[in-house]
Amino acid sequence: MRFLSDNSAAVHPQVWEAMKKADSPDTPYDTDALSRRLDEAFGALFGREVAALWVASGTAANCLALSTMVQPHGAVLCHREAHIEMDEGGAPGFYLHGAKLVLAEGEHAKLTSASILEALDAIRDDVHQVQVHALSLTQASEYGCSYQPSELTDLTALARSRRLKVQMDGARFANAVAWLGCSPAEACGDVDALSFGCVKNGGMSAEAIVFFDPALADVARFRRKRAGHLQSKGRFLAAQILAMLEGDLWLANARAANAAAGEIAGAAGGRLLHPVEANEVFLRCTATERDALRTQGFGFYDWGTEAARFVAAWDTKEEDARALGRAIAAL
Amino acid sequence: MRFLSDNSAAVHPQVWEAMKKADSPDTPYDTDALSRRLDEAFGALFGREVAALWVASGTAANCLALSTMVQPHGAVLCHREAHIEMDEGGAPGFYLHGAKLVLAEGEHAKLTSASILEALDAIRDDVHQVQVHALSLTQASEYGCSYQPSELTDLTALARSRRLKVQMDGARFANAVAWLGCSPAEACGDVDALSFGCVKNGGMSAEAIVFFDPALADVARFRRKRAGHLQSKGRFLAAQILAMLEGDLWLANARAANAAAGEIAGAAGGRLLHPVEANEVFLRCTATERDALRTQGFGFYDWGTEAARFVAAWDTKEEDARALGRAIAAL
Amino acid sequence: MRFLSDNSAAVHPQVWEAMKKADSPDTPYDTDALSRRLDEAFGALFGREVAALWVASGTAANCLALSTMVQPHGAVLCHREAHIEMDEGGAPGFYLHGAKLVLAEGEHAKLTSASILEALDAIRDDVHQVQVHALSLTQASEYGCSYQPSELTDLTALARSRRLKVQMDGARFANAVAWLGCSPAEACGDVDALSFGCVKNGGMSAEAIVFFDPALADVARFRRKRAGHLQSKGRFLAAQILAMLEGDLWLANARAANAAAGEIAGAAGGRLLHPVEANEVFLRCTATERDALRTQGFGFYDWGTEAARFVAAWDTKEEDARALGRAIAAL
Amino acid sequence: MRFLSDNSAAVHPQVWEAMKKADSPDTPYDTDALSRRLDEAFGALFGREVAALWVASGTAANCLALSTMVQPHGAVLCHREAHIEMDEGGAPGFYLHGAKLVLAEGEHAKLTSASILEALDAIRDDVHQVQVHALSLTQASEYGCSYQPSELTDLTALARSRRLKVQMDGARFANAVAWLGCSPAEACGDVDALSFGCVKNGGMSAEAIVFFDPALADVARFRRKRAGHLQSKGRFLAAQILAMLEGDLWLANARAANAAAGEIAGAAGGRLLHPVEANEVFLRCTATERDALRTQGFGFYDWGTEAARFVAAWDTKEEDARALGRAIAAL
Repeated sequence: MRFLSDNSAAVHPQVWEAMKKADSPDTPYDTDALSRRLDEAFGALFGREVAALWVASGTAANCLALSTMVQPHGAVLCHREAHIEMDEGGAPGFYLHGAKLVLAEGEHAKLTSASILEALDAIRDDVHQVQVHALSLTQASEYGCSYQPSELTDLTALARSRRLKVQMDGARFANAVAWLGCSPAEACGDVDALSFGCVKNGGMSAEAIVFFDPALADVARFRRKRAGHLQSKGRFLAAQILAMLEGDLWLANARAANAAAGEIAGAAGGRLLHPVEANEVFLRCTATERDALRTQGFGFYDWGTEAARFVAAWDTKEEDARALGRAIAAL
Repeated sequence: MRFLSDNSAAVHPQVWEAMKKADSPDTPYDTDALSRRLDEAFGALFGREVAALWVASGTAANCLALSTMVQPHGAVLCHREAHIEMDEGGAPGFYLHGAKLVLAEGEHAKLTSASILEALDAIRDDVHQVQVHALSLTQASEYGCSYQPSELTDLTALARSRRLKVQMDGARFANAVAWLGCSPAEACGDVDALSFGCVKNGGMSAEAIVFFDPALADVARFRRKRAGHLQSKGRFLAAQILAMLEGDLWLANARAANAAAGEIAGAAGGRLLHPVEANEVFLRCTATERDALRTQGFGFYDWGTEAARFVAAWDTKEEDARALGRAIAAL
Repeated sequence: MRFLSDNSAAVHPQVWEAMKKADSPDTPYDTDALSRRLDEAFGALFGREVAALWVASGTAANCLALSTMVQPHGAVLCHREAHIEMDEGGAPGFYLHGAKLVLAEGEHAKLTSASILEALDAIRDDVHQVQVHALSLTQASEYGCSYQPSELTDLTALARSRRLKVQMDGARFANAVAWLGCSPAEACGDVDALSFGCVKNGGMSAEAIVFFDPALADVARFRRKRAGHLQSKGRFLAAQILAMLEGDLWLANARAANAAAGEIAGAAGGRLLHPVEANEVFLRCTATERDALRTQGFGFYDWGTEAARFVAAWDTKEEDARALGRAIAAL
Repeated sequence: MRFLSDNSAAVHPQVWEAMKKADSPDTPYDTDALSRRLDEAFGALFGREVAALWVASGTAANCLALSTMVQPHGAVLCHREAHIEMDEGGAPGFYLHGAKLVLAEGEHAKLTSASILEALDAIRDDVHQVQVHALSLTQASEYGCSYQPSELTDLTALARSRRLKVQMDGARFANAVAWLGCSPAEACGDVDALSFGCVKNGGMSAEAIVFFDPALADVARFRRKRAGHLQSKGRFLAAQILAMLEGDLWLANARAANAAAGEIAGAAGGRLLHPVEANEVFLRCTATERDALRTQGFGFYDWGTEAARFVAAWDTKEEDARALGRAIAAL
């Protein structure tokens, strides 16, 4: 019973179906009929004009978007535990040509106005220190916590007042929207670009970068090619994304994963390290307890020495989540 | 009837089948069972120990390989018409952190010892001029011409004598091997890394970088992640590549494409601009003649103002190639 | 008798004097009294508002200026023989983060509207080819030829019509102005930034970047620090530049060098490879003839196998130039 | 009375003299007679074979040296307060092409084996996290504290055991050696490259990079040119450095600065925030107290809100240091 990560779950049947349907020759790169439908599809979802590009990974999505916002001599402000800082192998340094990540604090891997200001105000306004050009937020956060729309309003207003662009890492944006119960537009707020995750939510190899400022998309198109991310059979990536949007499959999948996580969280009681506001559960858990769970067939990651992380996916079976809940309760 | 490019052809049924079979959860990135089989599969193909990595595009394959061979202050020597110079949107500049491409001449987009020496000897050996660190060869060349094994022996020996690493762009390596009728090892010669193309040959989104020097692969693994090319469901890329190798599907597909190109070439007579030694046909052809062909339903690219390029793919129908041949003969 | 280059000539006494006067402690970097006078001094020279920064080398001046005009995915269009292409050790690749140099032709190392258009029009307007963001002109050119004001008007108008920024490498701008007999403003035309050379003209270690668009200077200030070019005792660089401007020492020095070059040219007759419009003389000259000159004590560079380059500096003695002229005439 | 920084002090008369003597034409760049003496001069100083290069700033010296040790996908481990992290405007990101700085703790801005291990051990050994390629130490530290030779032995041995290269920022190396009373070789220990500072110690515009591994110097020579730091009249930089070494002027100057700092420290009592082991004094000091000192004519920097930094230079007058001491004692 796998709770290691949603990032290697199976591919949803509707995604497969859409990919198969895309298997007739069309023009290459992003000139095919499906790729050309992305702007409209996301425009409808967010209720405004957008420009949307497919790429094959969340790392590429985040870093390409940021590369349109941050000059090489600038910096991105992000949470100390953000994926771009911790788990992208230095991709921001590569895509941003040596720009820096300025790290800020915040409970549950969420930034606050206060933590952003603390980080910004520690920087002298001169050429000897690297100045921040953009803010990066993660929805849901690395600890599975979601920003409320009102929080986003505050944070993006702060960013604007400091003339920062705003990028959102939405590898689990679907889970956040499903948990928040708000519109996609409310769940991302006034950001300039959103990495709209599909791979962790039933897709195979496609993420979307949704640009709310089309001028940035025009830059990103060049940068995507330059990064070797403009696949020639791009129609198969567009097909995956359109399948996720079709009939709100993305929300259905996210709700299923969230429900499974909720099942586990419900059994966790005082062990919970972070509120469960998406599809991840972080539990206080000794090495002996983790061994016990593994002996019962549960797969998951240690989180430091005193905790464990359980991630539910769109295809996590309800009975598996319940079994894990029972096993945790019985520890 | 499409002769625009092999880069957007359909995906081969055996590739689909292998991808479907890969659709059970496994560990992420390249730790899954399929990805772990690549070294052995390519080792068997080339008859020596190799390290093989999947990536999603030929641009990424070429540039990641070169990034392990060329320091930022160095250069790659390549043909003036090479894909890395002409069609990769500046990706070498990005992946090599500003290293330069030094351009050399040669008929049919093939380098010769003389043209390489001419380019190398024009560079003063001092810090004011950028020194060449690696040689890049394309097999088959941008004009669909294949290097003979003996030519490769000479060129790589020359490179070694100048202490250059050697990379091979093999986006159409299969077509070259099929045309040459030699072993894969002979068709790449003593290179340090080969971009083994699949996408143009019936794959969907996977190319392999085959490193003949495993130390370079260890660097490439870090660079792949850093470039956002380490997909979490990498098993679907490994599956495509293994399917291509299984029962030599890669060669069968390439032979089919070459045969179709041969069909066209056979009808072209004195119009041929380059010998047809793979699956591409370049013909002298006026604008009026091109119009005539298009009116008959043939799709292809203009090549400058006085020529046209026709590319056959693994799924090009024999009757279409014949029809095109007849139409050309009738011009 | 040295005609190797003006780049290692002696430092002018007035420059020494100004440096000595600067030797009382002041605030560091570019906050000192002298550095703060640069904008005004160059504003007066060019008759308009400018922002001027000192740096220690022409390479840094050119590349820092270009880095404010060209995105990493773009290109600079320059002459095939331009210093940034031939002799700056790949500095543009470094400072522009992998942007490309697109090379254009032109007699005497001067670009023309036709050669610029030819280079631009060879680039497809898509993401697969690198697009040009800026034009770089060299005044005087690598072969010691000067652009007339009317030529500059045409070239910069063309650049504007293609939305290109324009940078001018003025390592020998003084020599061009002295030869043209026009105003400095006319000699640079409608460019966005000028590298105003001093080192080759009697300075020690200071060049000025004159930005005609102050917004670019604001970026350059960050880039200069980031490149390690913001010296803490910057007042000594400012002092050199101000000394050059004081009483038009820069023009007097350039006139002296040009006169010496004219002396040599006058004796060269049909040997001249390029018109002498600054302080450099390129002569057709066999190896035997070069040996003969060297035996007589003249130092200079071979230029390929059939030519030689002679450069006069501000401190070239008239009698040495005459002696060289006589020696050449006697060959 | 200036205690703002040693970085804008006057230039020592012997340095001026040496520069004047260098003012006859010689070959350009680093081919002149003076530049060619650097290896030998530093070899004698350190008692072993070295390769030494001049550059114009400490930022360039540090970053060029590091660029020979760290691949773009790697990281430098340094102190959280190190100059390369805090005050070089992102130069490491530029020179190292996006490599990261991994920050470690330590009192008085000095690293310890424990703090280095803590930082290293927090990094997972996989491609998702950036691996450390080099260690950077600062001698004396940002807070004017010197590493003892025995400390350096431990730290560099630890670095070797983790296969890290070691670079030393010696902007105030002279002050450390003077304070430690040991040999230069002992004061830098087993590092691969040392930035040997001159500008803060009576020089004008020259720092030396001393490479103890000549292979790294061969790379640095290319990188220096590429960064625009290969000045054509490099003989004036070499002259400054040789003048500093001549008769141990560097040590005499550093001793003078240290003595002045000692004078201030002696009066500071319990206000001292860090031991004074070079030429900097950090004092606890309220805003009111700082105002009082400024009213008496003392110039210095605030250090946060509750402290002040006083830096003595080679030319700080003994009476000024005493006057400051008295003023502090009287607060």
